[in-house]
Amino acid sequence: MKRRDFFTNSAAGLAIGPLSLFGKQNGHNTLSKVKQGAKNIIFMVSDGMSTGTLNMADLLLKRKHGRESSWMKLYTEQTGHRAFMETSSSNALVTDSAAGSSAWGGGKKVPNGNLNVNADGSFNKPILQKFKEAGKSVGCVTSVTITHATPAGFCINNKSRGDESEIAAQYLDLKFDVMMGGGAEFFLTEKRKDKTDLFGAYEKAGYNVARDRNAMIALSDVSKPILGIFCEGALPYSLDTFENSELQKAVPSLAEMTSKTLELVSKNKKGFAIQIEGGKVDWAAHSNDAGGLLYDQIAFDEAIKVALDFAAKDKETLVIITTDHGNANPGLFGGDKQFDLLQKFKHTNNWILGDLKEIPSPSQLIERIEFAQGYAIKTAEAERLLALFGSKNEHGLYITNKPLFRELASIQTRYTGIGWAGMDHSADYVELAMFGPGSEHLKPFVKNTDLHNWMLDMTGTAKV
Amino acid sequence: MKRRDFFTNSAAGLAIGPLSLFGKQNGHNTLSKVKQGAKNIIFMVSDGMSTGTLNMADLLLKRKHGRESSWMKLYTEQTGHRAFMETSSSNALVTDSAAGSSAWGGGKKVPNGNLNVNADGSFNKPILQKFKEAGKSVGCVTSVTITHATPAGFCINNKSRGDESEIAAQYLDLKFDVMMGGGAEFFLTEKRKDKTDLFGAYEKAGYNVARDRNAMIALSDVSKPILGIFCEGALPYSLDTFENSELQKAVPSLAEMTSKTLELVSKNKKGFAIQIEGGKVDWAAHSNDAGGLLYDQIAFDEAIKVALDFAAKDKETLVIITTDHGNANPGLFGGDKQFDLLQKFKHTNNWILGDLKEIPSPSQLIERIEFAQGYAIKTAEAERLLALFGSKNEHGLYITNKPLFRELASIQTRYTGIGWAGMDHSADYVELAMFGPGSEHLKPFVKNTDLHNWMLDMTGTAKV
Repeated sequence: MKRRDFFTNSAAGLAIGPLSLFGKQNGHNTLSKVKQGAKNIIFMVSDGMSTGTLNMADLLLKRKHGRESSWMKLYTEQTGHRAFMETSSSNALVTDSAAGSSAWGGGKKVPNGNLNVNADGSFNKPILQKFKEAGKSVGCVTSVTITHATPAGFCINNKSRGDESEIAAQYLDLKFDVMMGGGAEFFLTEKRKDKTDLFGAYEKAGYNVARDRNAMIALSDVSKPILGIFCEGALPYSLDTFENSELQKAVPSLAEMTSKTLELVSKNKKGFAIQIEGGKVDWAAHSNDAGGLLYDQIAFDEAIKVALDFAAKDKETLVIITTDHGNANPGLFGGDKQFDLLQKFKHTNNWILGDLKEIPSPSQLIERIEFAQGYAIKTAEAERLLALFGSKNEHGLYITNKPLFRELASIQTRYTGIGWAGMDHSADYVELAMFGPGSEHLKPFVKNTDLHNWMLDMTGTAKV
Repeated sequence: MKRRDFFTNSAAGLAIGPLSLFGKQNGHNTLSKVKQGAKNIIFMVSDGMSTGTLNMADLLLKRKHGRESSWMKLYTEQTGHRAFMETSSSNALVTDSAAGSSAWGGGKKVPNGNLNVNADGSFNKPILQKFKEAGKSVGCVTSVTITHATPAGFCINNKSRGDESEIAAQYLDLKFDVMMGGGAEFFLTEKRKDKTDLFGAYEKAGYNVARDRNAMIALSDVSKPILGIFCEGALPYSLDTFENSELQKAVPSLAEMTSKTLELVSKNKKGFAIQIEGGKVDWAAHSNDAGGLLYDQIAFDEAIKVALDFAAKDKETLVIITTDHGNANPGLFGGDKQFDLLQKFKHTNNWILGDLKEIPSPSQLIERIEFAQGYAIKTAEAERLLALFGSKNEHGLYITNKPLFRELASIQTRYTGIGWAGMDHSADYVELAMFGPGSEHLKPFVKNTDLHNWMLDMTGTAKV
């Protein structure tokens, strides 16, 4: 979308459009009022977040802790603005995360699986490269691998989102200021196919490399860029860290990573642009894992609070909070008491099934689930689960045995009242929130690609 | 909520609230700007509409007819305002339609199943009674029985939503101006337990009674109130009328009923307040019936267009468009071509299963489904369905064999890519849109009960 179109369709349209039916308008009724008011951008993605995920997390917080989510507080306190966002890719109504992030990152819809590469092979320049060239500090933080599709879509061009080893090497060339998440296997000599010592190469290029939470917390040298990689694969689900002090030492929360990132990048007088991703919300939805889903959404919400507190004080920061697509369209269909079981969950379904060392007996499985989530399933249910232990993955990206996870979720529905419409991304229009300078111009319905120029326009950054 | 609280929490709050962080505000920043600008209210309910229902209907319209829905057009053209609405009842996060409509109609959350009756047995005065006393014309239009929970929640008090015979008699005492929908069995001498001739009683009380589409279309005497009852039970699904000229003669569309209602009530110089319900959207969600769901949502959208066209011309009409709760949280999880099958659907799942005169053979069932929806299921799938023909209803209100409908939907998912998270209402926060005078004051998050005083305030109607 060209700058001219952007204004025609949004703020300027208000002055002459159908809103003239009304005596009162929304305040932003002339083009001249559109200012480039933001110096900084915090772009927050709860990956694969259906509406039900957002509002069940809010309900869980209200019932467990007596407070609403920071996301919903933007609305109840009327400090934020909101819109529907459509999420299609160039070749499908249902996007994947690569095309989803590319829509924001490159401003163009690309085919699923591609990172800022069009169907004809041409490239769209990723937005963090544009911001870096404009002198801003830039970076990405995620709860999955730092080389995963959503951060990558803001950083690089690659025809294959799956080539995370190559993406880890591509990041090195960019010298972005902060990159934090999981995915150590794409940096370690012994794990990489090409046997490169990528951690060493980052250090040689001037990076501070943090490999655990304490090292990350201790970082204070803002003159050096930071690579924080805390484990192989994705970071653990938040719920699974609550009673595990080892994990708590090893792995920071999304809020802690966000806080550290802001501490460092906010020192740049020319401003900053960062992406913060709650990536495991999507993974939990793919595996219909209610505890994983809602507590990681809450962890994302805690990172929102960090971002909003910063922006409220700073006054030059535009915070954009959204998701790339729906996933599994979960909802609460049961009674209040069923839902309240979630408050006492100690572990995710992924912990129940994924961490098993050997195939349990029915009674062992019943005991394990009761320990993890506080309800005792029936023997027949345990037997149905055990019958699936040998079955193969259908087509999922993240879990190795979809039928097994689906069956556990289906049994869990009887206890928690939470149901699932699928194990994949959905074509739903999704929730988009904004806070800070420029957010008052948000239209009620936007395309995912609109956000690219929006971020450039609001910060007065040239479109290269 | 008292008038004072209403303003404190909404418009007035803006002047002193956290929005002062921003240089620009939303225009509605002082209490003095809140005017009672609307003379008329059109309250539109797509019953049981999850987010996916709204946006799949929009996508279906775009792909089939190259146009967006009237609901979404409110957003893309920036003529409407939107909010999240929470939908809980007084005793559950997941409301039923009686408590849902009572929240709007009586301004108080009541226990599920109750129509404007509190837990202590006390009554909340229904909003159409208040508007009638203020001299306005009032009425309800629905695609289900006119005595069903959603219209009833605007009209009467009753501890039992299920007593539709009594509700039909309660309506007679009210002498509302327009009541249109299904439910003839609650008016017919031979069908009522008390053997009262309720149609005769309505005529004696001065009503014009229309029993089919043509009679309804022909009505022009605005001096007499109208009762339009077009069939027993609910009106047929829109999709099932497309190729059935008998049904088309017998039964008007929701848009036609809306149009006739506006023609009549708009003659009142003191204004009007009406409720228009797309009630079968909820029924289709309860039975996971994709064709029923999306084409009835589109029929509702056509009624929206009638309402918005009227309001845009009239300039004194506030149109409120929403749903009482989510239902089944459907979504598109499959490919574009799968979704495009919906464009060629001729009949609903309800038609496939509900209109069967005897149990078919597998090949007959395959043929019937292919005729109705354009895809041929496998013999094993047909056999799975047939095995359920004898099974009993679990707990549904509207369909007699939930496992059978669930199995058909589950098979259908393989062809259409549409999935379902349940067969019941969900606790999702839902979509709320407004158009017309006063709509610019809409907050981003509201409670269902807020709308009661909103309608009274915006029309300057006394709270009795």
